Amino acid sequence: MKPWTFYSGRGTCALATHIALHEAGAEFNIVQLDFGATQQQSPDYLAINPKGRVPALATEHGVLTETPALLAFIAQRFPHKNLAPLDDAFAFAKLQEFNAYLAATVHVAHAHKRRGSRWADDPAAHEAMRAKVPQTMTACAQMMDSMLAGPWVLGERYSVADAYLFTMVGWLEGDAVDMAAWPRLVAHHERMQARPAVQRALAEQ
Amino acid sequence: MKPWTFYSGRGTCALATHIALHEAGAEFNIVQLDFGATQQQSPDYLAINPKGRVPALATEHGVLTETPALLAFIAQRFPHKNLAPLDDAFAFAKLQEFNAYLAATVHVAHAHKRRGSRWADDPAAHEAMRAKVPQTMTACAQMMDSMLAGPWVLGERYSVADAYLFTMVGWLEGDAVDMAAWPRLVAHHERMQARPAVQRALAEQ
Repeated sequence: MKPWTFYSGRGTCALATHIALHEAGAEFNIVQLDFGATQQQSPDYLAINPKGRVPALATEHGVLTETPALLAFIAQRFPHKNLAPLDDAFAFAKLQEFNAYLAATVHVAHAHKRRGSRWADDPAAHEAMRAKVPQTMTACAQMMDSMLAGPWVLGERYSVADAYLFTMVGWLEGDAVDMAAWPRLVAHHERMQARPAVQRALAEQ
Repeated sequence: MKPWTFYSGRGTCALATHIALHEAGAEFNIVQLDFGATQQQSPDYLAINPKGRVPALATEHGVLTETPALLAFIAQRFPHKNLAPLDDAFAFAKLQEFNAYLAATVHVAHAHKRRGSRWADDPAAHEAMRAKVPQTMTACAQMMDSMLAGPWVLGERYSVADAYLFTMVGWLEGDAVDMAAWPRLVAHHERMQARPAVQRALAEQ
């Protein structure tokens, strides 16, 4: 099989998929888009992903986007790696619930810091959005903490959700969240940093 | 098996899950929360769903939230209803990609009309957010149109993604999107309205 092509960007949520690909032992080439030069909006890249975002994964069947979809896909394509509870619909749904919350609430709250122009044109509104990010991201930290069964998201079982949590928790300090209040999230972050797949993804980012 | 309990609210995205439950032939009781009285933030409901949102589904294994997770769960729990391509990881991922886009981009864009207080405290910022909704939701309509294979989201095969698309397209007119520009979305909406499961869910909402 031809290796997949993984489209990523430094400091973005693509890190979660990147980690999952290494956990799975997938063969892939990386294309790092230059967000400083808004390469994700270039005609060449829009032909691959019309949303102009990362991550995107070019597979033998076509291009896939959206982190929750990619994480479940990677787990399903490498079932022997046990990256998701594939044989238990409820447990799989809890994994998906976690990933959906991170995509639709946590990532969105974070994006109001630098991407306010997505939702308003007025610079004063962008400033008002930026000002609230520490509060919204603290609320997100609290919810993520309550959902983290420990030591991994799903309990004793490591899964692709851990790669996603690692990515979001990595944003909290920059969003002015007091990390001393969330020792379980910090411990999860350190546990993740000890994993070879995480170290490899971070080195490649 | 004890019937499930489905927590919903009129005019919310819970409609998608409601339709999927009827398409699946699931047995469930409905609890309609009174959003006018912010019942979704009451202590009783927060004990069920700490996020204070709908949908939530109380199953024999526990409570599930987040529309993309619920839609995939319902499809997996009623496999003979063919509500998702469960035997094809890539096709399933495309379904999930669609649902993730609706949850994390379309629903979020829409929420900036009335829920701006989630992301900023300044009333002027809420007004600036509201003003941009027709533009962001038009961009979302364009993306949904391009992803709709037709006649259903996945092509000839009906799936839970159609229930989600129906719900989001139902919001476009109220968000000042020019529906005349999106005849394929309108035709999908009418196709959905002819389905008994959709009619039943709408009547119960």
